[in-house]
Amino acid sequence: MAIKVHGMAMSSCTARVLLCLHEKGVDYELVPVDVLERAHKQQHYLSLNPFGQLPAFEDGQLTLFESRSICRYLACKYKETGTDLLRSNCLKESAIVETWMEVEAHQFNAPIRTIVRQLILNPLSGLLPDEKLVEDEMEKLGKVLDVYEERLSKCKYLAGDYYTMADLHHFPYLVYFMRTPKAGAITSRPHVNAWWNDISSRPATVKVSEGLKPP
Amino acid sequence: MAIKVHGMAMSSCTARVLLCLHEKGVDYELVPVDVLERAHKQQHYLSLNPFGQLPAFEDGQLTLFESRSICRYLACKYKETGTDLLRSNCLKESAIVETWMEVEAHQFNAPIRTIVRQLILNPLSGLLPDEKLVEDEMEKLGKVLDVYEERLSKCKYLAGDYYTMADLHHFPYLVYFMRTPKAGAITSRPHVNAWWNDISSRPATVKVSEGLKPP
Repeated sequence: MAIKVHGMAMSSCTARVLLCLHEKGVDYELVPVDVLERAHKQQHYLSLNPFGQLPAFEDGQLTLFESRSICRYLACKYKETGTDLLRSNCLKESAIVETWMEVEAHQFNAPIRTIVRQLILNPLSGLLPDEKLVEDEMEKLGKVLDVYEERLSKCKYLAGDYYTMADLHHFPYLVYFMRTPKAGAITSRPHVNAWWNDISSRPATVKVSEGLKPP
Repeated sequence: MAIKVHGMAMSSCTARVLLCLHEKGVDYELVPVDVLERAHKQQHYLSLNPFGQLPAFEDGQLTLFESRSICRYLACKYKETGTDLLRSNCLKESAIVETWMEVEAHQFNAPIRTIVRQLILNPLSGLLPDEKLVEDEMEKLGKVLDVYEERLSKCKYLAGDYYTMADLHHFPYLVYFMRTPKAGAITSRPHVNAWWNDISSRPATVKVSEGLKPP
């Protein structure tokens, strides 16, 4: 039975899982979840993901949710296939990958998610962005990107001179962020910009980007 | 050379790492960081953790930061010692552990951290808590705990009938939360309360709790 990803191609967290599947060259079925009909808050979907968020994932009898844990499962199951995303053959290398994955989760994700929601999702719902909130979050994101600029002056990717899950996890929100008037936060930092240009030109990211468009 | 944890016993994120060390029975040196003197924003500490947050970690030549990645490194390095925190011998079991670790990171951590900061740290600085913010975050936390209550009615711990890193990661903020007037959010949910009573009576958690006190 094929792997099933329940979600939407335009959802950042769904895209994170799809990216991982493409890096591993693993077939999957994307099962659409109609969020406009609030299908993600109905009992069937809640039995897959009790938090009612996208995505959910099925591999035979195994059901998972939370995009980053699904990515990790795929990286472990298909360890010998495609891109080596966790560098788990070397404890030290994997520890550095894990550190930058945690940086994404605990430093980068919250501000960029808020900015993307305010500048891209709000207008789709006819709402004005909260400019003060965007500026506050841009200040936080800027401090994070300053650390990235320093880090990426020393190695090509966040965890070393190889592409890993740490880079992959950043991609979906960056796609949307780069379409906002705030994209200069990336392009004005030479090493961050070179990293962005590199990770966004991989076959997997090019493919998944096609779906990362608001309706 | 002994493992060095740079941090403070009262810091939640430092405590997360100490808990893991105690579960593994690994010796360490806690190197105090004087945050009142802003030592965590000085160049020496920033060379260990570029985000200037507690903790940082050294094991010989390896430097790490972000508490959850340090815990993972310890669980991998001392896989055969002490508590089996990641269940990495079984792909399916480990995937469930990882899912609930991500739930902690992306559902639980933000609201409980805000509540603890408002109700415990603000008064220490002579500030009043922002009651509206606390109520908003309590509503979010309540929804998360409703999912936990359901989950913990089916298994003793979050990832199954065994204590794992998923439970461990929750502990430090819960210690502080249980000392606030909002502790009823835990005690009023029978399965969550039983889980809390269980995880807070482990030798490692009892030991680390001793340090989890504001000055």
